[in-house]
Amino acid sequence: MTHAVILAGGWGERLWPMSTRSRPKQLLKLVAGESLVRATLGRIAPVARPGDALVLTGAAIRGAIADELPDVPPERIIGEPVGRNTAPAVALAAHVLVAEDPDAVMVVLPADHVVADAAAFRAAVELAVGAALDADGLVTLGIRPTRPETEYGYMRVGPESAVPGVHTVEEFTEKPDAAAAEAFLAGGRHLWNSGMFIWRADRFLRETAARLPAVHRALAGLSSRPGDARFGEQIRAYYSAVPSVSVDYGVMEQADGVLVVPAGFGWDDVGSWCALERVWGDPGEENVVRGDVVLVDAERCIVHAENGVAAVVGLSDIIVAHTPEATLVCQKGRARDVRRVVEELKRRGIIES
Amino acid sequence: MTHAVILAGGWGERLWPMSTRSRPKQLLKLVAGESLVRATLGRIAPVARPGDALVLTGAAIRGAIADELPDVPPERIIGEPVGRNTAPAVALAAHVLVAEDPDAVMVVLPADHVVADAAAFRAAVELAVGAALDADGLVTLGIRPTRPETEYGYMRVGPESAVPGVHTVEEFTEKPDAAAAEAFLAGGRHLWNSGMFIWRADRFLRETAARLPAVHRALAGLSSRPGDARFGEQIRAYYSAVPSVSVDYGVMEQADGVLVVPAGFGWDDVGSWCALERVWGDPGEENVVRGDVVLVDAERCIVHAENGVAAVVGLSDIIVAHTPEATLVCQKGRARDVRRVVEELKRRGIIES
Repeated sequence: MTHAVILAGGWGERLWPMSTRSRPKQLLKLVAGESLVRATLGRIAPVARPGDALVLTGAAIRGAIADELPDVPPERIIGEPVGRNTAPAVALAAHVLVAEDPDAVMVVLPADHVVADAAAFRAAVELAVGAALDADGLVTLGIRPTRPETEYGYMRVGPESAVPGVHTVEEFTEKPDAAAAEAFLAGGRHLWNSGMFIWRADRFLRETAARLPAVHRALAGLSSRPGDARFGEQIRAYYSAVPSVSVDYGVMEQADGVLVVPAGFGWDDVGSWCALERVWGDPGEENVVRGDVVLVDAERCIVHAENGVAAVVGLSDIIVAHTPEATLVCQKGRARDVRRVVEELKRRGIIES
Repeated sequence: MTHAVILAGGWGERLWPMSTRSRPKQLLKLVAGESLVRATLGRIAPVARPGDALVLTGAAIRGAIADELPDVPPERIIGEPVGRNTAPAVALAAHVLVAEDPDAVMVVLPADHVVADAAAFRAAVELAVGAALDADGLVTLGIRPTRPETEYGYMRVGPESAVPGVHTVEEFTEKPDAAAAEAFLAGGRHLWNSGMFIWRADRFLRETAARLPAVHRALAGLSSRPGDARFGEQIRAYYSAVPSVSVDYGVMEQADGVLVVPAGFGWDDVGSWCALERVWGDPGEENVVRGDVVLVDAERCIVHAENGVAAVVGLSDIIVAHTPEATLVCQKGRARDVRRVVEELKRRGIIES
């Protein structure tokens, strides 16, 4: 059976102050009036039933995530006491799923991405599920690049595998410089690493045992039934024992049998404020605005006003975000540095770290 | 006797959103933790007792102004049902004061200016009071320009009058263009019109009768005792009958016997956000900030954060103001256009007009 594993941890720091620790990106209704996490579950529902899904999220927002996903049984929404990146969360999910179903296939989906063409997305997932079952592959969805993005990971695509439409992966490159990103875009042999993975649960547990021994050992102390009375306590022990490591770095970049389904379903990870220009903007629009916004001689700005007014006078190419708690004003080319603002606010104790 | 007449109407639209209709500029504690209106009254107190002062302000904020000025008897704080610029307010004050004291001298002071050197200010006022009594002059305080400001009115200074240190005024120029302002600054014969006036109350009533007949007629229906039972009703009738006209335009630019005391007491009308750089800034400071502000590669910015955080990334020469209700982001050279934002917000009904 195919199971959705929704990774709903973190809070989208680079979308601060629209996104905050208590109102994280995955709960924001950025598109079509629906939260990203609900859209993620709904998009995969025809392939993997919500009742069989597992959701991993921060303990502090577990209740809010549960409210947003009423079709997922509450015990299947697991609160992480502390973030440890993706590998420990995915290993935990594999540990639970393989006990329920030795042939379980996992579709690992970040909860905070936008997909324009849900049908194309599901077709790609179904191709990947076939490759996970037929070839026992570690399958990723690779997105055809549409710009020389330097904030993404890239995969160089190899020959087609035994499964038609599914390719081998020759190399991973994390966040290339601008020249390399241009070359990847022009060359046509690279795909973006979407962070969406499809594999058999038992296959991932074997990889965990081989490559992430501390995670493997910590799993031994964990019940495979999230409804168990002592599961909460065991989870705390698990997260205090595992290292912080990503699936990409900890497994994919070293493993054999890594496959990719090249796809183009209008994907965006909404990784920074500049993404909102793509997600919200209409072609030809001079400025991209949300809320009560007043512009006087403003050009190519992204302006978001939440419960209040934002006004811009005589400026171009900037991001402005107003919430009652905070204002961000950022040159568009510096959107990644919103992270530095958040770091400073943590240092001052204004944002909890 | 010398009476302070404090003009505390309006709300400082160009300082939006720090300044709002319900929390107007004159009530803000911009300097030394004291509201501008309280500082105005305190500064003149050694020359004109607070108990003898008259304060004119908007009816909607009359209570807040009264709370801020406990030394002024409440009936002497007069709420204008509608703003009609300065001439009707000053004529009303003259009408009240002349009934109390036929020899009353008025010191008319806007409630929202900053003065660095209070002793020098009082010395200038005392010189002006002497000229008002000895020469029956319409005396203004003229500020020696320190920059080619195009948002102020200027006066060309004539020869010294019979009163030492007090000069005649040859010409008024309202808001010159940049070239004229540069010439005024370089020429040394021009002073800024501070909007502070000193004269006998009966003299101003004679000018009103001669130059502002509609105001003169409307005064006839008004008791000269603000404590009278029907004063509130009469005030409404008065303000509905008078035109909106400034003292400068309606009287000073036409009258004879206009005198000026040239002075330099560190005056600023805090007319726009750029003024706050002068009022708040320390010499050599790269950015001028108030409140919880985070700067990442920001240069020469003015950033004000009120009940929240303001962050600026990779930008220079901008004004950023955050309040829970609104955010302003403005190129420094466009500070005067904050007025256009306020106009648009009035048009949309977000700000009451």
